[in-house]
Amino acid sequence: MKKLGEIIYLPPEDMPEAWYNVLPDLPEPLPPWKDPQTGPSRIKALKDIYVNKALEYDENYKDKWIPIPEKVRQAYLHAGRPTPLNRAWRLERALETPAHIYYKWEGTSPTGSYKIISNLAQGEWAQQEGYDRLVTCSSGSQGSALCYAAAMLGLKAVVFINASAYDARPGRVLHYKQMGAEVVRTPSETTEIGRQMLKEDPRQPGSLLTSAREMLEVLSKEKVRRSAYVMGSVNTHNILFMTVMGLELKKQLDLAGEDGVDVIVDCAGAGGNWSGICLPFVKDRLDGKTKTRFVACQPWDFACFSDGEYKYVDAFITNPLIKVYSLGWRKDFPQIEAKGIEIPNGAIIPSYLRRIGIMEPRKYREKEVAQAAFLWIRTEGYIPALEATYAVKGGIDEAIRAREEGKKKVIVVNISGHGFYDTEGYKAYLQMCNA
Amino acid sequence: MKKLGEIIYLPPEDMPEAWYNVLPDLPEPLPPWKDPQTGPSRIKALKDIYVNKALEYDENYKDKWIPIPEKVRQAYLHAGRPTPLNRAWRLERALETPAHIYYKWEGTSPTGSYKIISNLAQGEWAQQEGYDRLVTCSSGSQGSALCYAAAMLGLKAVVFINASAYDARPGRVLHYKQMGAEVVRTPSETTEIGRQMLKEDPRQPGSLLTSAREMLEVLSKEKVRRSAYVMGSVNTHNILFMTVMGLELKKQLDLAGEDGVDVIVDCAGAGGNWSGICLPFVKDRLDGKTKTRFVACQPWDFACFSDGEYKYVDAFITNPLIKVYSLGWRKDFPQIEAKGIEIPNGAIIPSYLRRIGIMEPRKYREKEVAQAAFLWIRTEGYIPALEATYAVKGGIDEAIRAREEGKKKVIVVNISGHGFYDTEGYKAYLQMCNA
Repeated sequence: MKKLGEIIYLPPEDMPEAWYNVLPDLPEPLPPWKDPQTGPSRIKALKDIYVNKALEYDENYKDKWIPIPEKVRQAYLHAGRPTPLNRAWRLERALETPAHIYYKWEGTSPTGSYKIISNLAQGEWAQQEGYDRLVTCSSGSQGSALCYAAAMLGLKAVVFINASAYDARPGRVLHYKQMGAEVVRTPSETTEIGRQMLKEDPRQPGSLLTSAREMLEVLSKEKVRRSAYVMGSVNTHNILFMTVMGLELKKQLDLAGEDGVDVIVDCAGAGGNWSGICLPFVKDRLDGKTKTRFVACQPWDFACFSDGEYKYVDAFITNPLIKVYSLGWRKDFPQIEAKGIEIPNGAIIPSYLRRIGIMEPRKYREKEVAQAAFLWIRTEGYIPALEATYAVKGGIDEAIRAREEGKKKVIVVNISGHGFYDTEGYKAYLQMCNA
Repeated sequence: MKKLGEIIYLPPEDMPEAWYNVLPDLPEPLPPWKDPQTGPSRIKALKDIYVNKALEYDENYKDKWIPIPEKVRQAYLHAGRPTPLNRAWRLERALETPAHIYYKWEGTSPTGSYKIISNLAQGEWAQQEGYDRLVTCSSGSQGSALCYAAAMLGLKAVVFINASAYDARPGRVLHYKQMGAEVVRTPSETTEIGRQMLKEDPRQPGSLLTSAREMLEVLSKEKVRRSAYVMGSVNTHNILFMTVMGLELKKQLDLAGEDGVDVIVDCAGAGGNWSGICLPFVKDRLDGKTKTRFVACQPWDFACFSDGEYKYVDAFITNPLIKVYSLGWRKDFPQIEAKGIEIPNGAIIPSYLRRIGIMEPRKYREKEVAQAAFLWIRTEGYIPALEATYAVKGGIDEAIRAREEGKKKVIVVNISGHGFYDTEGYKAYLQMCNA
């Protein structure tokens, strides 16, 4: 039995040595990519944009365990993996719940979030394939993780960030620059498409699409290919890498003396982080060996897994069509504070798991999430990233349910990163709660 | 031998069980407090302001080991202690140094800095003595640590922060509020002295002194004493608590397979953090058993240990006179980015250790510190607090010296916290370096 307050650390030598590939363990193959009906083949174009080794995995890779290259393992160790598993002792007491609440805390990461897991891996493969630059479109934690991975591997980094996000998130832009990256505020004068957009409206705020278009132009004009495009979480290969979280969790629950886990709760935008923590537990559930529940908490207006349709969509300009839960595109999507999960489409794997009844989706309004966040912060003391506050709300609801049912359940909440960058969002949260 | 990249974690069960009191190990008693020549006795007033148990220690407490109360130990564990000791593999390679560079990383703290060590301890003692509120004057990490400690112990927290700092550091103010604290922007309408100051100039920026004066008025008007004043680092008892850092380090160097340490490098304002990491190594040096050097790195214009005089000074309004290294008060002190070490006076213990030749003071200009910070960030990936960038510069200089001397030295750099709050300061650093 662990002491009150004690955190469960997994010794570095027990860090997973391989990523877990769920594909062979699923009841059927995932729905494949499709090309749009018009225009050039995006499937064929992928190999000119992405790291090829990553793409192999996207195409139904057969091996269940993919060894983590030694250099990536070293980088994971240096970045503080395995990350700690904390027990929410004070929150349990505050809720008067018989449940054991644990949280995987990814906030020890040098960039403040789990995103480096995937970026270090793609960066290493990119380097093996002869690239010397990593590029991405981001205005948040993905950009930070890319810059970090590039610096650690001795590669150059370029982050394309649209003008309004650039102006609104000085802390993020600063981090990219601290890490030595080139930051392109889009639309920019550096590309044809950027110059054209600026001509139309010199003060336009841009969008993720603006950034993607400029990035693609830059990539397409390289005579010798040197830039690899690294995405954070949408692609199937991103999810492969993220499984280190769930693999660590499994061992940590053993160390904590728990006999399995009743429910894992995480936030979900496209569902990459959710997949990373849940996948290593899914096979046992599919085989009927456990009844572990997998809760995915989404913002009310971006609840694709609750309210979306399962269909082929054109989710991102650089990618082929994918079959996922989607809300479609609306002009009137509201603005929310948790920008990282302000996404109308799921990723392929979590969408499939939703389809077959493994994922339990849930949706929350901002105010109830903000209230949960302050209860959490004032009992546990750790500031979660805004995205993770949805997981916090879900975890608290599960703990209350356990109290009502009078059951000693084991609940794990995944906290994808810390919230030290989220100044504006938390100010809004305080206002919502008059706190 | 540890694997490349691996961090040295001390298992929770090996966390120190007692704070180390250096006083009995020093060659002579520390110079005592003195009262100012005029006015009421400040020595007598201390017991109405501070936690009495803390004051006991300040008066030459005789026990060498002071057991850490169980509640504080639990809180330390939950806050991520023991903190990791990282090896700066990539920095060593970049500098081509034969030295082993380690860094104690306090950035895993829920508030981002080491300051919680002292606040949790004082908070616990305050609670034992019947107080139910903790108060402090701060615009930085001390305020965060106080709010955190209060929340963890179930006490109320009040932070007095002067107007200009309040406006300039929205991230900090937000953290205080996230933790549920009352924040008083001074001068304020809540005290007589505040109202008087506002009458003279409604837009005055205030200062640490403004905050202290309002706080003292609030304390003096309590009919039943309920508020304990908690300082971060200036008092001798603060330094007692900080020794957990050095005690952990000792065990971690053993785990790393190192036979002692050649030089410990830290930043220093008053010298509290420096003392915490160094003190557990001082006795062996005094006894001639080791030749460990203890380097204290200060800002060029606040280099009290290099340029100051050793004398009795009136260092802070609430405190008696203390004998320390001091630059005196100048009207023309420049503004620097590392606010936490923008201090003209040392604390008693580090000043004494400077006097007897144990401390090796050093002073650096901002630009060279900024350059060192970016080298560090781009090789190690962790963002140090601005204050800690002075330690980084000192550590890099030591590593270069080891290369020039061709000696395999063991260098430890103490990184007092992370720099995610230091947006404005790092922007200035980037400009200094045109980076």
